[in-house]
Amino acid sequence: MSYGRDARGERTVSRGGGGLATALRGLVEQHDVTWIANAMTDEDRVVAGEEQSGTILIAQDRDAYARFYNVVANPTLWFVQHMLWDLAFAPDFDRDAWTSYAAVNATMARAAIAELDRAPDACVFFQDYHLYLAPAIVRRERPNAVMSHFVHIPWPESDAWTVLPPEIRGEVFAGLLANDVVGFHTDRWRRNFLRGCVDVLGARVEGDVVDHGGRRTLVTAHPIGIDTDEFDELKHDESVLARERELEASRPEQLVLRVDRTDPSKNVVRGLRAFGLMLDRHPELRGRVRMLALLDPSRQDIPEYVGYVAAIEREARSLGDAVDLRVGDDFTRSVAAYKQFDVLLVNAVFDGLNLVSKEAPYVNERDGVLVLSENAGAHEELGEWALSVNPFDVSAQADAIHEALTMGAAERRRRADAIRAHVRSHDVSAWKDAQLADLDRVRSSR
Amino acid sequence: MSYGRDARGERTVSRGGGGLATALRGLVEQHDVTWIANAMTDEDRVVAGEEQSGTILIAQDRDAYARFYNVVANPTLWFVQHMLWDLAFAPDFDRDAWTSYAAVNATMARAAIAELDRAPDACVFFQDYHLYLAPAIVRRERPNAVMSHFVHIPWPESDAWTVLPPEIRGEVFAGLLANDVVGFHTDRWRRNFLRGCVDVLGARVEGDVVDHGGRRTLVTAHPIGIDTDEFDELKHDESVLARERELEASRPEQLVLRVDRTDPSKNVVRGLRAFGLMLDRHPELRGRVRMLALLDPSRQDIPEYVGYVAAIEREARSLGDAVDLRVGDDFTRSVAAYKQFDVLLVNAVFDGLNLVSKEAPYVNERDGVLVLSENAGAHEELGEWALSVNPFDVSAQADAIHEALTMGAAERRRRADAIRAHVRSHDVSAWKDAQLADLDRVRSSR
Repeated sequence: MSYGRDARGERTVSRGGGGLATALRGLVEQHDVTWIANAMTDEDRVVAGEEQSGTILIAQDRDAYARFYNVVANPTLWFVQHMLWDLAFAPDFDRDAWTSYAAVNATMARAAIAELDRAPDACVFFQDYHLYLAPAIVRRERPNAVMSHFVHIPWPESDAWTVLPPEIRGEVFAGLLANDVVGFHTDRWRRNFLRGCVDVLGARVEGDVVDHGGRRTLVTAHPIGIDTDEFDELKHDESVLARERELEASRPEQLVLRVDRTDPSKNVVRGLRAFGLMLDRHPELRGRVRMLALLDPSRQDIPEYVGYVAAIEREARSLGDAVDLRVGDDFTRSVAAYKQFDVLLVNAVFDGLNLVSKEAPYVNERDGVLVLSENAGAHEELGEWALSVNPFDVSAQADAIHEALTMGAAERRRRADAIRAHVRSHDVSAWKDAQLADLDRVRSSR
Repeated sequence: MSYGRDARGERTVSRGGGGLATALRGLVEQHDVTWIANAMTDEDRVVAGEEQSGTILIAQDRDAYARFYNVVANPTLWFVQHMLWDLAFAPDFDRDAWTSYAAVNATMARAAIAELDRAPDACVFFQDYHLYLAPAIVRRERPNAVMSHFVHIPWPESDAWTVLPPEIRGEVFAGLLANDVVGFHTDRWRRNFLRGCVDVLGARVEGDVVDHGGRRTLVTAHPIGIDTDEFDELKHDESVLARERELEASRPEQLVLRVDRTDPSKNVVRGLRAFGLMLDRHPELRGRVRMLALLDPSRQDIPEYVGYVAAIEREARSLGDAVDLRVGDDFTRSVAAYKQFDVLLVNAVFDGLNLVSKEAPYVNERDGVLVLSENAGAHEELGEWALSVNPFDVSAQADAIHEALTMGAAERRRRADAIRAHVRSHDVSAWKDAQLADLDRVRSSR
């Protein structure tokens, strides 16, 4: 969560809108959890100076935090893990920024150690690519701590990691292996991590356990789910219904939807190109089908992201009124569109999981068809009911969109029902239970 | 080899200057070999229409050949295998060009089949990334043919191959597995290929054998060597000595050399940046050290390559007279410079092997120091005697260049001697013998 001030100077609290924040909220609400997070806003920094319980906000050095967040985490690690670097030209590895990443990790590790001193039996549960170095620091100080780390983004193969110098990628792998459990969304990312442990560290792998430096780490794959109760409610929320009425009044016969952050990994430009190509091949659909692209502006402090928004806008303009491009953060509008799509396009270059591919079909009311990238983590679960596409094959994406638009009602229904049933039975609490079961397994083996 | 016409209209023959052509020439000279190649020049196409023996030139359809060569082979496959695509933006998979690639492969396969009809006990020896589909065609027609394929460029990991749609990357892997032997320069590329056979095809791997579709394929790693006799002669060649005298007259106290094609995989821009950074950190070396960059212009029909030359020229200009950039094809000058360098920079992003890292130290007469990318295949052999650098770490490359320039004489000698001894004992005939031994192993197991 994040703090701010409203127009009257009162403190406001906004919860993170992303799927990760939602997933973790469930954990926090049902267990005795202390959430340790970096202060992001000015008001966060004020809160960080106050007595805290439940959520601890850490005020980092501003410059170090900027390098940690806007250089190392994004884009360096994000681009390495989504294979987005244009390697002939970028990056040049930035050692000073890496030092800042290490410093922010050390501060977070100290906060975790302080919390362990207060509650020695607590588990430490690290999230994502911002904290690869913290677990090793905690482990050094508290050898018996029970620690788990979940990586929400893709784990690329060993050669992709050579974008980081050898000692640095060694620190990343060793940092993760300081945990008792390392979790990924899919078997594919898990497989890449296990191979990397061998290639980068020379570790020994036996089944799902990595043996390195005298420690054993369990490596698991549990795809995250959505909070189905929340979406059951949202469907009938008055503000969603109001946005849905607006959409219904203006919608064409068939609606092709995408909902993404404006991240180069999401492959928005090729998606627009594919939609344009589909219309070129099937001019009879012009005027009857529109693409609605709801894009949440993301990481606009980073030049690559600014450039990507510009490329999206150029491509969309070239398609005229066949595309309705909306750049802005409006979750209510997204849920309304989720209910209304006929085709949902998720064509990510690479994606750790992709929660939109679960949220949108779950609430959709038109038996909409999911067109899903083979490189999205969700493809391992949903691929058999989706139309699979290769993210670099624009022509095949155009054909898949057309196939989805012209699919018979029975077939659409069959696929949509199967996705809904899967999403319902693999919800966020199943994911949370799997995390806790991993920890139990580790504890009982001690 | 390639045919042309001189000023008087007489047919000329020029041999390929690259290391691969040299290596294969040895094979051709010592065995009864028919070389089947595509006609590249207009005169080649004339020769293709004549009675041929020894070398058979195939005249392909011009448009199909252009797509085969300038779209699929370069840049598509080359960029996939060197991980050079800027994946957020390129490529869009081009199915028509792939059809042309398949057609050119089919024509080459038919030529191989015709040759097998003439000499049924011959082995077919496929080279490189231009011919991934031909082996499966020959295998279908001649199930008992003995076939070997050597891949001279890096073999990337499975996720990198997803730049090609599933059925296409399946064809690539299955095409190679139609051979009895598949060879790579290094264990690293071999390992990636073996994993890919599992990931892409679901093949079974036992040690160095892949079991797929009822066939077994031996997968080996043999780094190519240089023709040491040729370089022993070249050292004393009058034209080389003449170029060397020119160089000696103009050279600074210490010379940092790079010799490359102007290929984005060679990492020329970062190398220039590293040299500039080294001078910034050690201003006392200004005027005493110069970088000589001898760059052979490459694939200038392809926009990415034209852009890369421009980027190199921009970077070099910013360094003023600290850099002597020569763009042109002049092997004699390269050999003269090989003899004269104090530091050789080979900082490739990825490289299948890199023959310059063997040729230049072999003839060098100043105990020059090799600074070598960890992502060049030659690093597996020469890394222990080189200063290893990560290709993306410009700062560390600057430090390595400085360390090389200031290294003591005894240490330089020790390293240079070790590299020369290794290159001498692992020459091109050792590589050729290893290829033939693999084929013997396959034959005896039948």
